[in-house]
Amino acid sequence: MTRKGLLLILSSPSGAGKTTLTRMLMAWDATMRFSVSATTRAPRPGEVDGREYHFVSRPEFEGLVAKGQMLEHAEVFGNFYGSPRAPVEAAMADGRDTVFDIDWQGGQQIRASALARDVVSVFILPPSIAELDRRLRSRGQDAEDVIAGRMAKSESEISHWGEYDYVLVNDDLDRTFNDLKTVLQAERMRRDRQPGLPDFIRSLNAEFDAR
Amino acid sequence: MTRKGLLLILSSPSGAGKTTLTRMLMAWDATMRFSVSATTRAPRPGEVDGREYHFVSRPEFEGLVAKGQMLEHAEVFGNFYGSPRAPVEAAMADGRDTVFDIDWQGGQQIRASALARDVVSVFILPPSIAELDRRLRSRGQDAEDVIAGRMAKSESEISHWGEYDYVLVNDDLDRTFNDLKTVLQAERMRRDRQPGLPDFIRSLNAEFDAR
Repeated sequence: MTRKGLLLILSSPSGAGKTTLTRMLMAWDATMRFSVSATTRAPRPGEVDGREYHFVSRPEFEGLVAKGQMLEHAEVFGNFYGSPRAPVEAAMADGRDTVFDIDWQGGQQIRASALARDVVSVFILPPSIAELDRRLRSRGQDAEDVIAGRMAKSESEISHWGEYDYVLVNDDLDRTFNDLKTVLQAERMRRDRQPGLPDFIRSLNAEFDAR
Repeated sequence: MTRKGLLLILSSPSGAGKTTLTRMLMAWDATMRFSVSATTRAPRPGEVDGREYHFVSRPEFEGLVAKGQMLEHAEVFGNFYGSPRAPVEAAMADGRDTVFDIDWQGGQQIRASALARDVVSVFILPPSIAELDRRLRSRGQDAEDVIAGRMAKSESEISHWGEYDYVLVNDDLDRTFNDLKTVLQAERMRRDRQPGLPDFIRSLNAEFDAR
């Protein structure tokens, strides 16, 4: 049966596994679309324009916001981040889900938008802050002051856990990934996400009438 | 992590597989409780008092309703049916889910009660009315006029599909059972069904404070 694309918002403090889980989800279901954010920050080593982010200048970013082309946007550590609107609307019309790897500010804005009913939001928590710290350091690419900044942001991010539909504690990556798939599969079965149901009911009623 | 028991309401026209699915669910998760309805109708062959139904007299039933001991009740084909309240409340407090095999009237009443937030409702549809008819006849225990009555009730029952959170079309029992498990597993992960989360967040915040 046809279905309506939903918006899966994943938020978590940096290092809780959100980016890895997003990649696992995309590998598991090729029909899903990853919402590539636009940002004014500089690329990190290994990041490719159009894959992890659309890297744009500040005037370009401000132009997109002014033209209403951003579903949400926010400033973090002096850089702007935002989710382009057009690809999300195209995916939804196509019956494809979109995954957003965004923070609480983005989540709030999309939940406050006209797309609120299409949103499924999941917050990923680390099993402990000691483990979060360990995962951040194991990346080995950030300076100590950057890590300290991320940990401060993590505390603020975690304070928004109560705004999400689902909360998963990522103490085992495979189990958390299974839980995430379960949430997505169930949400796809919601009555209001199956636009083919009214036609199917009409066919059942026609059978009753023909008896 | 501890969790709060939820109320899983399964409704469907007679013959769509609801009772079989309920039995599969109970066999899969022994912690689940089946809400044994009270009824004034006579037992069918094989039915055991206290297992399929609590068989009570009409005055007994009316007494339970008058004392507020029924979560919901309704009259169907001249017989009364109702869900006793006390065992449901005991299961919830114990972190156990309760499964209700009830019709749209019962579903509406529980969703309109103080327990509305704890309800997950699933409507099971047959793949076709021809198949529904075949399944009803294969039971081989009902007279032709009883079957005709059930089919008329089925049409009325199906008209309430739009009141349920999830809709499953039972064209393959194993797949529908898997879908039902997926819905239940996802709903258990909802933030507001995990009462241990606030304490867990406090432990994370204590870790931040101690840094």
